[in-house]
Amino acid sequence: MSQQPVPEDKFSFGLWTVGWQGRDPFGDATRRALDPVEAVHHLAGLGAYGVTFHDDDLIPFGADDIQRETAVKRFRKALDATGMTVPMATTNLFTHPVFKDGAFTANDRGVRRYALRKTLRNIDLAAELGARTYVAWGGREGAESGAAKDVRAALDRMKEAFDLLGQYVVEQGYDLRFAIEPKPNEPRGDILLPTVGHALAFIERLERPELYGVNPEVGHEQMAGLNFPHGIAQALWADKLFHIDLNGQSGIKYDQDLRFGAGDLRAAFWLVDLLETAGYDGPRHFDFKPPRTEDFDGVWASAAGCMRNYLLLKERAAAFRADPAVQEALRAARLDELGRPTAEDGLAGLLADTTAYETFDIEAAAARGMAFEHLDQLALEHLLGAI
Amino acid sequence: MSQQPVPEDKFSFGLWTVGWQGRDPFGDATRRALDPVEAVHHLAGLGAYGVTFHDDDLIPFGADDIQRETAVKRFRKALDATGMTVPMATTNLFTHPVFKDGAFTANDRGVRRYALRKTLRNIDLAAELGARTYVAWGGREGAESGAAKDVRAALDRMKEAFDLLGQYVVEQGYDLRFAIEPKPNEPRGDILLPTVGHALAFIERLERPELYGVNPEVGHEQMAGLNFPHGIAQALWADKLFHIDLNGQSGIKYDQDLRFGAGDLRAAFWLVDLLETAGYDGPRHFDFKPPRTEDFDGVWASAAGCMRNYLLLKERAAAFRADPAVQEALRAARLDELGRPTAEDGLAGLLADTTAYETFDIEAAAARGMAFEHLDQLALEHLLGAI
Amino acid sequence: MSQQPVPEDKFSFGLWTVGWQGRDPFGDATRRALDPVEAVHHLAGLGAYGVTFHDDDLIPFGADDIQRETAVKRFRKALDATGMTVPMATTNLFTHPVFKDGAFTANDRGVRRYALRKTLRNIDLAAELGARTYVAWGGREGAESGAAKDVRAALDRMKEAFDLLGQYVVEQGYDLRFAIEPKPNEPRGDILLPTVGHALAFIERLERPELYGVNPEVGHEQMAGLNFPHGIAQALWADKLFHIDLNGQSGIKYDQDLRFGAGDLRAAFWLVDLLETAGYDGPRHFDFKPPRTEDFDGVWASAAGCMRNYLLLKERAAAFRADPAVQEALRAARLDELGRPTAEDGLAGLLADTTAYETFDIEAAAARGMAFEHLDQLALEHLLGAI
Amino acid sequence: MSQQPVPEDKFSFGLWTVGWQGRDPFGDATRRALDPVEAVHHLAGLGAYGVTFHDDDLIPFGADDIQRETAVKRFRKALDATGMTVPMATTNLFTHPVFKDGAFTANDRGVRRYALRKTLRNIDLAAELGARTYVAWGGREGAESGAAKDVRAALDRMKEAFDLLGQYVVEQGYDLRFAIEPKPNEPRGDILLPTVGHALAFIERLERPELYGVNPEVGHEQMAGLNFPHGIAQALWADKLFHIDLNGQSGIKYDQDLRFGAGDLRAAFWLVDLLETAGYDGPRHFDFKPPRTEDFDGVWASAAGCMRNYLLLKERAAAFRADPAVQEALRAARLDELGRPTAEDGLAGLLADTTAYETFDIEAAAARGMAFEHLDQLALEHLLGAI
Repeated sequence: MSQQPVPEDKFSFGLWTVGWQGRDPFGDATRRALDPVEAVHHLAGLGAYGVTFHDDDLIPFGADDIQRETAVKRFRKALDATGMTVPMATTNLFTHPVFKDGAFTANDRGVRRYALRKTLRNIDLAAELGARTYVAWGGREGAESGAAKDVRAALDRMKEAFDLLGQYVVEQGYDLRFAIEPKPNEPRGDILLPTVGHALAFIERLERPELYGVNPEVGHEQMAGLNFPHGIAQALWADKLFHIDLNGQSGIKYDQDLRFGAGDLRAAFWLVDLLETAGYDGPRHFDFKPPRTEDFDGVWASAAGCMRNYLLLKERAAAFRADPAVQEALRAARLDELGRPTAEDGLAGLLADTTAYETFDIEAAAARGMAFEHLDQLALEHLLGAI
Repeated sequence: MSQQPVPEDKFSFGLWTVGWQGRDPFGDATRRALDPVEAVHHLAGLGAYGVTFHDDDLIPFGADDIQRETAVKRFRKALDATGMTVPMATTNLFTHPVFKDGAFTANDRGVRRYALRKTLRNIDLAAELGARTYVAWGGREGAESGAAKDVRAALDRMKEAFDLLGQYVVEQGYDLRFAIEPKPNEPRGDILLPTVGHALAFIERLERPELYGVNPEVGHEQMAGLNFPHGIAQALWADKLFHIDLNGQSGIKYDQDLRFGAGDLRAAFWLVDLLETAGYDGPRHFDFKPPRTEDFDGVWASAAGCMRNYLLLKERAAAFRADPAVQEALRAARLDELGRPTAEDGLAGLLADTTAYETFDIEAAAARGMAFEHLDQLALEHLLGAI
Repeated sequence: MSQQPVPEDKFSFGLWTVGWQGRDPFGDATRRALDPVEAVHHLAGLGAYGVTFHDDDLIPFGADDIQRETAVKRFRKALDATGMTVPMATTNLFTHPVFKDGAFTANDRGVRRYALRKTLRNIDLAAELGARTYVAWGGREGAESGAAKDVRAALDRMKEAFDLLGQYVVEQGYDLRFAIEPKPNEPRGDILLPTVGHALAFIERLERPELYGVNPEVGHEQMAGLNFPHGIAQALWADKLFHIDLNGQSGIKYDQDLRFGAGDLRAAFWLVDLLETAGYDGPRHFDFKPPRTEDFDGVWASAAGCMRNYLLLKERAAAFRADPAVQEALRAARLDELGRPTAEDGLAGLLADTTAYETFDIEAAAARGMAFEHLDQLALEHLLGAI
Repeated sequence: MSQQPVPEDKFSFGLWTVGWQGRDPFGDATRRALDPVEAVHHLAGLGAYGVTFHDDDLIPFGADDIQRETAVKRFRKALDATGMTVPMATTNLFTHPVFKDGAFTANDRGVRRYALRKTLRNIDLAAELGARTYVAWGGREGAESGAAKDVRAALDRMKEAFDLLGQYVVEQGYDLRFAIEPKPNEPRGDILLPTVGHALAFIERLERPELYGVNPEVGHEQMAGLNFPHGIAQALWADKLFHIDLNGQSGIKYDQDLRFGAGDLRAAFWLVDLLETAGYDGPRHFDFKPPRTEDFDGVWASAAGCMRNYLLLKERAAAFRADPAVQEALRAARLDELGRPTAEDGLAGLLADTTAYETFDIEAAAARGMAFEHLDQLALEHLLGAI
């Protein structure tokens, strides 16, 4: 297996990632603005297959129609020249102060309507550029104080918004699905739909649930202390993993957006193992921020590192799964039994089976070791390349 | 409004709460075992209306049929004598070492079958004692290491288990619904269905989703840093708040189970405000542990404190909502606008409305203050009894 | 007790607090720049006695000498007109990109020297304006990755810097002490001297330890899940609480800088109780950020709320301490015994005392309840104004 | 380099680690008690050089003098037979209910005296068995509620206790130093001396500070979200790293005590790198708990894994430091400059140097990239064994 990325690896990057200028809550920009065209060429050169964008990444907020057309044209030309695709697009509903209290759930009705129109407009562009996934991150949909948001009313508004967007996509005949991106907090004190679970549950109350899935981001779930591969597994189990944002995070703190592989390395290993064995075939999308200590050499090193780490982990995970000692250890840990139904004999069979309860040897079952430590040690040594 | 609890307040307590002996990961029991009958009488005397139990709280694990019958009979007699009800029951699927790798999702199939039978048996007792809610806390359904649990297979087993339990309840004609209790971790490194959101999403994939709701616990969501009232609001929005576990927690750390009102007081205020205004009419169930520093005087003081704090917060929240200055502040914060549809004119209307986008005065909208700080200060002063 | 702040309450505010324009990692400014002169007048009108500043708050970065002089003159005039004092000043060593890898511990030696000179210059101004405390927040002294910073070398550089600053203050004869402000992370992945404890320990290795104390900030310690009043108590115990930054934080997440009273209300109560009973007589300094949802009405409401909440909590805490029932409960919880030496008989006495060990009735001691729940319930009811 | 542990590696284990029976807050023991003699033989066979103990691990609480003597004799015999040493011992001041409110800082003076005597007694045994370090973990020194503990009084009692213990060791002529082990919480809501920093600061106020250092535990600092290698670096910088507890923890949650290498793998890498390059020559002590899912095969696999992971990481770290590409990258990141004094020209020199401020090219300095991402990627690839 090579660790040189190729388009078949489906690596994609947001324009806002390599283009991040390094403004943070306590500091000014440390890097110049990056021309989207330059980003496309550079990322293609590194082996990525796709690039994604917020409307305002490509077309400056407030641009007139001519500026807009010019920007899109230049971008398309770069795509054509490089063979890069646009697998996903999204809307910036958070930077401008008008969104200070949210977009689809802003208390101001005018802001809500404006946010919907801004989104609809960019959906047209997304469809035009061939995107198949439209991500919605409701970063400002939330509150810092208890009475400022009636959450049930806000969820009504959120549902209304997504139902309208779904209707639009259907009416326009776009081949586009929505992926909701959860986050627990930052920039709001608490954000609505804070985890993969909350987003999955919300989707079930929409008019066309089949149009909506999730776009989980590594760091966002880890900001709530949750096991990221577990969340992805539940999304896959529900057939709702429409897209994924790969990056790194060092525990429960502010949103770090480290390059993929930094932060919790073992979680990254299990994540790649899961994505590769579960048949996920969407983009491997990196949503990270090259640290503001870096110049552009560091930016590209960081982007290359994201892809290289994915490929290294993929190689390690494949070797882990192929190792006969691991297969033996998985059986010893009785993973095969977990794959079997508990009661293929049905409720009646289970109730009638005295070996299941009346004569079940509880103490013997309790005494059996699960052999998880041996298995986990094998995994760790595969990760370290020590086997 | 009185702060003396009465049955109409629907306060209930688990037998395991006041009966907790104070064993913790680093220490032995500090209190003697409490007879369930004594607990019933004491709680009734304090003003509670209900008592709840795990099977093993009432009937020691491994008891024979005669011991079982005796225990149930004594308990019923106490209920009759006091007028106490049993609004909810649940299963202990975590204390015995046989459940060390879980119950419904244990890798061992025999353990899974045993767990189901143990649960079915206690459902009979729950129904017999008049419980309307059956809580399921899968505290051991999880893992400490990545390969030890195939989460998608485990969710299959979890679904299988809940579907069987639902089938049983329907076949028996019991008037009983299930309430799934999420928790992110402890005693497992990561627990499946870690938050209210994950549980709500899981329910939608069951065969009879209408039979299942959630039983959120204050501290469990706060262990993931989540806003508890927000989670409750989403559960209410989904019509799935079947039961609730009230207690206190001081941030992201081990499960503290403090008395209600301790820990995050402002979240407790907003929670009571929500429950009382949203029409939740289930039990106000306290699932707390009187600290092991306490003797039985402290235990009862702690239990009484739970109820008194709920009533105090209810009084404060009612005063907050009734205050004309608050109503004015809510309007200034445009909560009324959040209650209005964003697009009662439908998609077509929204698209045709140039005031929504083309001529929308973004800067003016951005400049409007939301007046949340004034509103939140009013809330704080009501909480402090300072208005 | 009145809740109208007066200068004797010693409330002070940073220019950067009410002057925060609302730029956050995901959004642009929502408020115009605030003239320091306007801030001084407004804060004086609200009842504050002091105002504090970073050099760049008062004099724009890069200003020439004339601009500098003009700015200082206008500021002085506002101070004179209002009677406001400048109890504290500090240096901005984080906004400009030159500090992207830190200041006193930047890997670049040139940056370190520049940072020291920038600080020395502002110390002159601080002294000139009568400040008695000089705060040092090393917000950028840290790293996101393991090899990027040799922490022991960095601590050498940190010590070198503080020793030089101390030498300067002594040589100039300034009546000025330093207060180091710890923070665990943000904007760096990990910041050096992450907690009050680490800063206190560091100080002991300086050449003139008596010149240095700490400036703990509520939210900073709570970002590490630490009990803020406990940290303050240790700082007081070490005679090192030179200054304090009051604000609010809702648990372990990004730095929220909520107004004082928001966030963990019970911790705020115990903090005020501690400050008022321990004889702390420094400024009550608010270092908060009015949420970016607010216009200037909200800014001033938020600033007023900080002070009002302090006064309300002070009133509640005083009532708690004065309540005979509380005093009785404190004795029942044996706080008086904690105040007595454990072994006034010395080591020899302790060793010779058979009642201390050989005949000590362990079980009786173990059985005594600590009565903490009753005591804590009294505290909660005082806080709620319910007693 | 071999990954087979040998005594020269100085690996030691607590009796309570492999002997942990798996009792947790929600479950009963899953393993039988382990005879200390069996533990010694097994650990010696795996390659450990030392074993450590709490008094009650070796001699059951309440044992009489004959039982005590017998237990010690058997233990000594096992040590002699295997060549195992006892580098450290400690006191159990947390399991028995008498310590429910603490030991050295319990409100009950009788408990405090008893705790001191229990400790003094075990210090005699520690010295007799040749231990050079005496660890003090004050796991119950803390509180769950604000008024229950006067922290300043408690620190007075803590100081009194440690001063007495120091006096005793000096008077007895024992070659024994104390290592204080910090922990933020669990089993108390908040524990005194919650982090390495707080413990280091406390030590400076003792009568004989030179006798006291710290015993940091990986998971304890990570429970506060702190960077463990950073804390160790500060302890080393202060010459206070007397002992260390190695284990694993998956973020901010309950105390997990995973085997070393599990949890945050990258932090483990940087930790080993630091210990090995900083000249730490004390024991590499594992304080972990084999998960309760395991039988004794799993226990020993887990213990072996701790040592193997340390050796693997040591090998990886050495290769990282030896790699010329890394050395080049360290220079590019200007780590060499961090090692140089900032102002070897002294304060006067710095003030006189116009290139330091007046003519310093701020923008050029700001533009220089720090090249940290490239460096960190090299580290990651060394860790993965991919270079």
